[in-house]
Amino acid sequence: MHPFRSHTCADLRKSDVGDTVRLSGWVHRVRDHGGVLFIDLRDHYGITQVLADSDSPVFAEVEKLRSEWCIRIDGKVLARDESLVNPKLPTGEIEVFIQDMEVLGAAEELPLMVFGDQEYPEETRLKYRYLDLRREAMQENMKLRSDVVASMRRRMWDQGFREYQTPIITASSPEGARDFLVPSRLHPGRFYALPQAPQQFKQLLMVSGFDKYFQIAPCFRDEDPRADRSPTDFYQLDMEMSFVTQQEVFDTIKPVLQGVFEEFADGKTVDSVWPQISYRDAALWYGTDKPDLRNPIKMQDVSEHFRGSGFAIFAKLLEQDGTEIRAIPAQGGGSRKFCDRMNAFAQKEGLPGMGYIFWRDGADGLEAAGPLAKNIGPERTEAIRQQLGLGVGDAAFFLGGKPKGFQRVAGLARDVIGAELGLTDENRFAFAWIVDFPIYEQDEETGDIDFEHNPFSMPQGGLEALDGDPLEVLGWQYDLACNGAEILSGAIRNHKPEIMFRAFEIAGYGEDEVRKRFGGLVNAFRYGAPPHGGCAAGIDRIVMLLAGEETIRDVVLFPMNQRAEDLMMDAPSEPTNEQLRELHLRVVTEDR
Amino acid sequence: MHPFRSHTCADLRKSDVGDTVRLSGWVHRVRDHGGVLFIDLRDHYGITQVLADSDSPVFAEVEKLRSEWCIRIDGKVLARDESLVNPKLPTGEIEVFIQDMEVLGAAEELPLMVFGDQEYPEETRLKYRYLDLRREAMQENMKLRSDVVASMRRRMWDQGFREYQTPIITASSPEGARDFLVPSRLHPGRFYALPQAPQQFKQLLMVSGFDKYFQIAPCFRDEDPRADRSPTDFYQLDMEMSFVTQQEVFDTIKPVLQGVFEEFADGKTVDSVWPQISYRDAALWYGTDKPDLRNPIKMQDVSEHFRGSGFAIFAKLLEQDGTEIRAIPAQGGGSRKFCDRMNAFAQKEGLPGMGYIFWRDGADGLEAAGPLAKNIGPERTEAIRQQLGLGVGDAAFFLGGKPKGFQRVAGLARDVIGAELGLTDENRFAFAWIVDFPIYEQDEETGDIDFEHNPFSMPQGGLEALDGDPLEVLGWQYDLACNGAEILSGAIRNHKPEIMFRAFEIAGYGEDEVRKRFGGLVNAFRYGAPPHGGCAAGIDRIVMLLAGEETIRDVVLFPMNQRAEDLMMDAPSEPTNEQLRELHLRVVTEDR
Repeated sequence: MHPFRSHTCADLRKSDVGDTVRLSGWVHRVRDHGGVLFIDLRDHYGITQVLADSDSPVFAEVEKLRSEWCIRIDGKVLARDESLVNPKLPTGEIEVFIQDMEVLGAAEELPLMVFGDQEYPEETRLKYRYLDLRREAMQENMKLRSDVVASMRRRMWDQGFREYQTPIITASSPEGARDFLVPSRLHPGRFYALPQAPQQFKQLLMVSGFDKYFQIAPCFRDEDPRADRSPTDFYQLDMEMSFVTQQEVFDTIKPVLQGVFEEFADGKTVDSVWPQISYRDAALWYGTDKPDLRNPIKMQDVSEHFRGSGFAIFAKLLEQDGTEIRAIPAQGGGSRKFCDRMNAFAQKEGLPGMGYIFWRDGADGLEAAGPLAKNIGPERTEAIRQQLGLGVGDAAFFLGGKPKGFQRVAGLARDVIGAELGLTDENRFAFAWIVDFPIYEQDEETGDIDFEHNPFSMPQGGLEALDGDPLEVLGWQYDLACNGAEILSGAIRNHKPEIMFRAFEIAGYGEDEVRKRFGGLVNAFRYGAPPHGGCAAGIDRIVMLLAGEETIRDVVLFPMNQRAEDLMMDAPSEPTNEQLRELHLRVVTEDR
Repeated sequence: MHPFRSHTCADLRKSDVGDTVRLSGWVHRVRDHGGVLFIDLRDHYGITQVLADSDSPVFAEVEKLRSEWCIRIDGKVLARDESLVNPKLPTGEIEVFIQDMEVLGAAEELPLMVFGDQEYPEETRLKYRYLDLRREAMQENMKLRSDVVASMRRRMWDQGFREYQTPIITASSPEGARDFLVPSRLHPGRFYALPQAPQQFKQLLMVSGFDKYFQIAPCFRDEDPRADRSPTDFYQLDMEMSFVTQQEVFDTIKPVLQGVFEEFADGKTVDSVWPQISYRDAALWYGTDKPDLRNPIKMQDVSEHFRGSGFAIFAKLLEQDGTEIRAIPAQGGGSRKFCDRMNAFAQKEGLPGMGYIFWRDGADGLEAAGPLAKNIGPERTEAIRQQLGLGVGDAAFFLGGKPKGFQRVAGLARDVIGAELGLTDENRFAFAWIVDFPIYEQDEETGDIDFEHNPFSMPQGGLEALDGDPLEVLGWQYDLACNGAEILSGAIRNHKPEIMFRAFEIAGYGEDEVRKRFGGLVNAFRYGAPPHGGCAAGIDRIVMLLAGEETIRDVVLFPMNQRAEDLMMDAPSEPTNEQLRELHLRVVTEDR
């Protein structure tokens, strides 16, 4: 017989009754039923109940077992009494009577229980990650992640892509975040960098003629701590194609991602229509460039109804350039209590508040309530109601000013209203392409023009477009939002050196600077670059959505804590003097 | 029509004749046949001949095209004249008459030609890697690598393994080579390390209950330059399983690797019998622990025939402890010229030479020739011949002394003899498991005992075995050799803290030292560790074998040069002062 197991702990069924079997696994739980010890024996695949009583030749040893000891048992498969069958367990019809037992790995007292639902502090979970990972929810999350990545790979191959590995020890990449540096021992004083993304390499692959590239790519950014991201690295499904338009990138990646979501949605519906929404419309309708389309609320510009109206605050506001009044329609929100709560929410987020109107069944039928309705009068109120398509029992909230000032809160209010009124369908994955990003943005204080997003995108209209107002130039650049999270970003690239230099010039970068920072790519474009484009999808975020987890640490095997420390492996740690000497480095402590 | 292509450059056939098509690709070669310009248009998929003459509306522009310009053409598919059909090209029955043309990416004068077989210096190839990669051989190598990795993945999944990603920014790993360090910005003076291998993490995964893990894993070692390896990183097919024996690891990984080799052998035979050879036998028979079994030569101990013989040098040698005489039989090597050449080879490698005997058809039938035969006399000579199974036309070479002194050269001589006599079958992949590695080795000068291989292997015989002579202890530890290269290494791990501490103690490491260096793992073993083992196969090496390439740089997309520099991306490079300040580091230049 195999030295460790004839079956896994998920294998045995009624048909095995009478067989002698060997199982290995962990002591999940021990129950002492007066002289009979029942043990839930657990391995990666499942749980089998094993038992011993004083008839067992190893009863004395079995009595010593404690939770999480790793053991091997030999025993006889017994049918459970009909009344004791556990229908929740695939092995619930049988149990195994222990005839022999071997301790493979004993366990000391546990800092963290695997059985049960006890919550532990994050630091304990990370320090004893190997115990935390034994818990069923974590096993499932990690299996899910593995399966999602495999599914992405298979689907990319099915679309005619090959996976190519790009360097991890390389030069600084131009993503704009902070690099992790790696000192070179052979070249004192010089440093490599870990790639923030394989951006330049995948574009170089296109210049090399590889046509269709993808990679499950680790990306490294030295980020300041934030709850929902890793402080060190994350994974992307990175892809790039030559001789394509934006629409083709969409048509290529959509079946991959939709397929992945459908495969792992676990009963939730997955939208098959993914609307394309311009960056400007997204801001107007949803107050964000990553809208949650599970929420049907669409904001509207209602400025005209307030211009010159009796609501002086808005009327005055509208006299200034660049201001507008936006309405958030809230179907079913037509109560003063709800409206006041939303108003308070906006105040908590730093706005003066949200004006509102709500409609109720009055003495003379439909009646608009709230101070705002009184100020602007019944005609304007009714015009607003008709524009927003609301009725009895509904409400509308209003925000005014320069959109940049209230847009973020408007977007949050839309989320809260959708959730509180039950308008947002929690059992759904809803997607939106966000397109037509502006290439440039203007710093409000300095007036300087800089890239809004990614300096490598092709401007719509090419070189000619760059001769007009830079703030009007749109890029072949896109994001994909899912349930309010950005899960993908990409662009058709600027592959023509003359357009690239002009684009950088507008943002204040001279040719020398561009050559210095992006030399590898800019040089390559001199030798016959093809038109190309692609995107990168965030794997951690996608797995979080599918697993329903809120922190990235629940979908990564061995994550850092939020201070970028690995408590289990003790990283980062002090280097030896010899290491520092070899690297020609000295730590400057007085700067601390 | 699609803005860039209706077909790839590999698609068009006779059945397309008469159609109007659009192609995009690179100008591979231009030939001017007196007013008719023929262009081989190349993309990732193939080559199509396109042409223009003065009837073409864009003839003037076509005339300006040069090699490696990236263009789009529209044209009409024409049948080639029967005599001009190119049977080597899938598109060889047709050509496309250019009616419209657009330059997508022009090229300056090329530092490296893509068309043709011209050789370029390594530095040129690496600096203009995007051009080098356009060459057919490089495209094929990179596609091969991608396909090999995908095949490995598929086969591991088929064996019930899941792929899990382990951290890249982590703590120093205990592989014994030099780490790449990554300074921490948030923790001044402390450093992360890039993993030399996922060794500790994969063992932690077993402790976490994951049962079957694999990963296509990047490994990072700050190595001094050597021709056949990368100075920075390499890739492994890394795997680990719980509750297994050594034989099960073999039975699991063999079908994966054999399958990969069969899939990509390109006509070569792939051995299906993989003998298990002990480390000691491998040294005796092949002079190396990575024998090339395509070569049938097996060395033998022939000491007895020389003990007290008339060949004084060997007879005297054998009076010392630990010496022996080994023979290399050489079927078909029976000429003085060949024997002298091999003797000279041994001298060039630093030995005094190799004695030899060869057998020829003499006046009285079989005749042994060479000075050695005369010295030991006909009886001993005949006994040697019979032991080695040689006959007319064959030779035998002899090396004597302590095996450590001559073994390496004996192994090399075996390779050369096998190759020169045509005994080595070049059209074959031959594998050998090397097993029973000693756990410890002794430093000849200091007498100190240290680990021979990997400190994490389980000693055969467990704790008890460690009570005897450490140099006699063998490990559950193994390599796989293919055609003379080590392509895999692995072990059943030492998962019991008490055996681990004892094993380290023998090598001179106290418990504190072990806890400090391998704390993550040692702590985890306190909480119910399962027996486990696995291996890691070298992907770069396997692809080199399959591609028939001698340098790793021909199977890696963007390799470093041998000074660990990326000439294309300019890495490593000088950091900015701000970067150094953020990392609290100063470069110490006076030490240079």
